Amino acid sequence: MSSTPRLRSLNINNINPHVKKAHYAVRGELAMKSEEYRHQLTQNDPPTPPESPLPFSSVITANIGNPQQLDQKPITFFREVLALLEHPALLDNEEALKSSFGYKQDAIDRARWLLKQVGSVGAYSQSAGAPGIRQSVANFIARRDGFPAHRDHIYLSAGASSGVNTLLNVICAAPETGVLVPIPQYPLYTATLDILNARCVPYYLKESHAWGTDITVIKNAYDKAVSEGTDVRAIVIINPGNPTGASLSEDDVEGVIKFAAEKNLVIIADEVYQTNVFIGKFHSFKRALRTMQQREPGTYDTVELASLNSVSKGMVGECGHRAGYFELVGFDPEVQAQIYKFISIMLCPPVVGQCLLELMVNPPKEGDPSFALYSKEYDSIKNGLKERAYALYEAFKQMEGVEIGEPQGSMYLFPTINLPPKAVEAAKEADRVPDAFYCLRLLDSTGICVVPGSGFGQEPGTLHFRTTFLPPGTDWISRWTKFHKDFMDEHR
Amino acid sequence: MSSTPRLRSLNINNINPHVKKAHYAVRGELAMKSEEYRHQLTQNDPPTPPESPLPFSSVITANIGNPQQLDQKPITFFREVLALLEHPALLDNEEALKSSFGYKQDAIDRARWLLKQVGSVGAYSQSAGAPGIRQSVANFIARRDGFPAHRDHIYLSAGASSGVNTLLNVICAAPETGVLVPIPQYPLYTATLDILNARCVPYYLKESHAWGTDITVIKNAYDKAVSEGTDVRAIVIINPGNPTGASLSEDDVEGVIKFAAEKNLVIIADEVYQTNVFIGKFHSFKRALRTMQQREPGTYDTVELASLNSVSKGMVGECGHRAGYFELVGFDPEVQAQIYKFISIMLCPPVVGQCLLELMVNPPKEGDPSFALYSKEYDSIKNGLKERAYALYEAFKQMEGVEIGEPQGSMYLFPTINLPPKAVEAAKEADRVPDAFYCLRLLDSTGICVVPGSGFGQEPGTLHFRTTFLPPGTDWISRWTKFHKDFMDEHR
Repeated sequence: MSSTPRLRSLNINNINPHVKKAHYAVRGELAMKSEEYRHQLTQNDPPTPPESPLPFSSVITANIGNPQQLDQKPITFFREVLALLEHPALLDNEEALKSSFGYKQDAIDRARWLLKQVGSVGAYSQSAGAPGIRQSVANFIARRDGFPAHRDHIYLSAGASSGVNTLLNVICAAPETGVLVPIPQYPLYTATLDILNARCVPYYLKESHAWGTDITVIKNAYDKAVSEGTDVRAIVIINPGNPTGASLSEDDVEGVIKFAAEKNLVIIADEVYQTNVFIGKFHSFKRALRTMQQREPGTYDTVELASLNSVSKGMVGECGHRAGYFELVGFDPEVQAQIYKFISIMLCPPVVGQCLLELMVNPPKEGDPSFALYSKEYDSIKNGLKERAYALYEAFKQMEGVEIGEPQGSMYLFPTINLPPKAVEAAKEADRVPDAFYCLRLLDSTGICVVPGSGFGQEPGTLHFRTTFLPPGTDWISRWTKFHKDFMDEHR
Repeated sequence: MSSTPRLRSLNINNINPHVKKAHYAVRGELAMKSEEYRHQLTQNDPPTPPESPLPFSSVITANIGNPQQLDQKPITFFREVLALLEHPALLDNEEALKSSFGYKQDAIDRARWLLKQVGSVGAYSQSAGAPGIRQSVANFIARRDGFPAHRDHIYLSAGASSGVNTLLNVICAAPETGVLVPIPQYPLYTATLDILNARCVPYYLKESHAWGTDITVIKNAYDKAVSEGTDVRAIVIINPGNPTGASLSEDDVEGVIKFAAEKNLVIIADEVYQTNVFIGKFHSFKRALRTMQQREPGTYDTVELASLNSVSKGMVGECGHRAGYFELVGFDPEVQAQIYKFISIMLCPPVVGQCLLELMVNPPKEGDPSFALYSKEYDSIKNGLKERAYALYEAFKQMEGVEIGEPQGSMYLFPTINLPPKAVEAAKEADRVPDAFYCLRLLDSTGICVVPGSGFGQEPGTLHFRTTFLPPGTDWISRWTKFHKDFMDEHR
């Protein structure tokens, strides 16, 4: 041993500086503090307010779109099939299958078919996912868009996040590489670009136009980046938006494709909220691209599109199963081979998740034994989400200094908040940006955890917060309303 | 549209060069070709040799440790619990639980307890995994080592691969950063270092000493790297070895810890094969470190150890569930916070996998209703692996030019192969390295897929291949023996 006092190998100043630079507010300081509160509350079980040091009796997790952490029940058909896949011995047991509580025939048939595709959910699949499941995804895309899809261009992933990570790893070639990202955005994009030491090229969504996507704004952002030496290689579109919920019109989708064609940009279409639409309609980039290719043969042949989907969102909400896919359109086969190699290093996405994805894209059809219950559950979740969104929207409309448009989709509301100067001052004293200060006070006072707008990016001089509209009931909304009034009074 | 013909944004020459540089032979060309053969064979179902263009009727996947793709059955207790977690309505159904085919009481109790920990397997957990499950892992480590472990230092992951990816992302700070890696090694390490644009500092294991780890060799590799300007920050130990199967003695483990302490290196202990040991004994790095800290107070306090484990290996073999964990010992809290942030970006590991990990580290105990069956299944898998390993070993001993030591552990054999000059010449003509040429010919002739030694690294001038000993039966071994004789005759 050397006689000099040993130091650790790793400290905050010598680890990967790009990891250090990354921000991911969705699970940042506020989320960790809310977990501490939750822990404190479960230690005092049942909570006895006079003895409890906390001024609330429950934590409301509205920082992340996690429906089943709240009261959303999984869809029965999906889970019946997954149970059979986990315990296939049941499939050989007539008594288990046929008894009064047993499995419907379509669940049994599907479990048998899926087992044939994967062998066992305990076996690694091919790196891009089981071929039969990728075929089923391709069939879904073809039905959705009216244009064919091929299973060899489908890559299953451990949630859409993992797919985005793959795509950005391959695209980001140098510190000058830039990717156009909408602002506000889900911070996966900026965090991953930071880690890869590449550049985020922000383009602002227009809050005054219901968070619309404006091609002129994108062009200006692109030109500015290029003039600064950035090699812009891709554009991210989140459609419907996170955190905004806004869906692009068909014209806007075509505009983005034209722009990408002109500037040689890969389009990364994050379409994980494609069924969570209240206002407008979801227009898939794949369909728009194929339509344009048909309309103007030759013009858009080399446009590269990667579109992502997930089991975590929609009415499925199976976040914990970590499953999703991306489809590649127009990619060079040599580049696809590199993508395949990259994902191979992590072996394969979770196989139960792959099976769940298959169920999501190929649910019971009319006439199937499980169809009635499936439809009822699906519709009930869909209606519930809309009701909750509007209940929260109505409450926000009443709050002083809060500006909000009608809920459009996804799982979030992203209101503007105008804080009085005294609150901004108090934030400064507490060494916080003002929106984070508001959110922290909200958490400390009510147990409600939301994410400050600064975690998603916002136009300079504006303040927002993102909240899911997933928590059930209205008690938590009343808590918020009361807090907000007190907060505004305090800082008036 | 611009009038110049549009090119794609991405081609093989402008994507991330570090991704391009990475090699991952375990799922490389041979594995992909074997999948094509498998596909061809399933199209001709049943295969009719006269019409089949292939000289074999089945593909033998011996390139990857994937027990359940072959005939290994999952352990019943694990899967009963997972089925109940997927379909919790069963837990409220007395008929389902109590009927003759039903679930044992300990499976029911465990499913209830796990559901309490995670809420739903469809909900995101905390980024590092559900606290109750991390506590269970900590308890397991404490029982295994005789020293306490803390759940806040346990990070659940989507397999050990994901854990390694996290650790290397944080450690690799610059192109000069180096990590000591054993050669031969599981290529996850070199591939990830390539992607992160950091340096692999190879140290050779001693084949002549049953693939032993030699501190002098490590020191020389370290000194050489430092003299070349490499900032060596960590050392990887795979114990038991992949592809070698060799377990480090207690002295060797202590030697590595002393060396790491002296040179300020993080120890990354890949211990995923800790229960797959035929010769020698598994000595955990955690236990050795704590023992040394007790013996010489103060001397090893700042040693940083990350040790990894997985549900994919052992007798569990649940690769498709993508679950594992790493434990951090001695890490700076600020660095731990960065690790936490990094994993947060991918939200959480698969929750069903987390539950399965809990079952692995806390299986039925003597006296529990499921204990007898669990023990029987576990022992049968363990004995089966050893029998298969020795059957293959005996066959290799008979093959001309093949040199092999007794099977020591893990799931692999890694024999030396001495190819005649004519074979080396033929390989050159086919534009292959000789070991890859042999493996390709083996696949084309027999359907057996193994990985050339060059995929793991080997001492210059030596040739090897890695095969799992997982495939059942002896027919495939006879195919190989016949192929080998023909190959040697052809190139004599």
